Amino acid sequence: MRVLGLDPGYAILGYGIVDVSGSRISVVDYGTVETTPQQTFPERLERLYLGTRQLVELFRPDAIAFEELFFARNTTTALKVASGRGVIMLAAQQSGVGLFEYTPMQIKLAVTGNGHADKLQMQEMVRLLLGLKVIPRPDDAADALGVAICHASVGEAAQEEFLIK
Amino acid sequence: MRVLGLDPGYAILGYGIVDVSGSRISVVDYGTVETTPQQTFPERLERLYLGTRQLVELFRPDAIAFEELFFARNTTTALKVASGRGVIMLAAQQSGVGLFEYTPMQIKLAVTGNGHADKLQMQEMVRLLLGLKVIPRPDDAADALGVAICHASVGEAAQEEFLIK
Repeated sequence: MRVLGLDPGYAILGYGIVDVSGSRISVVDYGTVETTPQQTFPERLERLYLGTRQLVELFRPDAIAFEELFFARNTTTALKVASGRGVIMLAAQQSGVGLFEYTPMQIKLAVTGNGHADKLQMQEMVRLLLGLKVIPRPDDAADALGVAICHASVGEAAQEEFLIK
Repeated sequence: MRVLGLDPGYAILGYGIVDVSGSRISVVDYGTVETTPQQTFPERLERLYLGTRQLVELFRPDAIAFEELFFARNTTTALKVASGRGVIMLAAQQSGVGLFEYTPMQIKLAVTGNGHADKLQMQEMVRLLLGLKVIPRPDDAADALGVAICHASVGEAAQEEFLIK
């Protein structure tokens, strides 16, 4: 099973793709889709949408997992992130595979065994679990790999609970 | 010039289309794109996106105007509305025409001459300005017609100021 993990934003979308076979998990690719402040907001939305479509078409995941939106204090930023997340989710939905969602705490728990792990502990466990020599960069890509690992670790029987409703 | 006005939401998207020629303004169509609670959220996003694309392809507007997002107290709802607005804006952006945005107060001022007009005053002025026998229903469609009238009334020279950045 191939899982695409996404850490949505409107400036940077982090992605991480893993293949899962039994208890074995291996990294396929990771990276970011980036937009710039020089683009208009609608242009940024279009870039995020097309970038996600390209990822889905190139890597053909069997499932796509999202980190649940963090409610930022800064409402204007939160609304922009939510708009970006909307177009990313649309592209994911158009792929026809199941869409899943996990809270930051669920992801930390699944990856490190500690729902309150800090960023560095998370990144180090992502590196270890995937057998990488260095911590994946940037942070957004490491976070997205964490989401993918979380979904893989839940097990197929329990995943249905995390389908986006 | 044909203007498509949009009042974005994730349960109901209101739309209103007007033709403007000099000081004359006439209604072309108005209505809603609706989603249901029985749909998953990604399904609702897809419906909003496809509905907006259909509107744009059918009516071929020269400009698309949005009501600026109201920051609802209920954050979960605000984030869902923002996600819906993202996919609606994406479909609008893909049409290639200019995208504009007005605050509720700017719209009230343009339509009624009073930035603090109430809902009924707004709807009655929309009816009068478009020469309709009855107030357009539902409210979302009347609101969207108000956005279109607002954009039409701003005048081409000043519209650039309201382009979505």
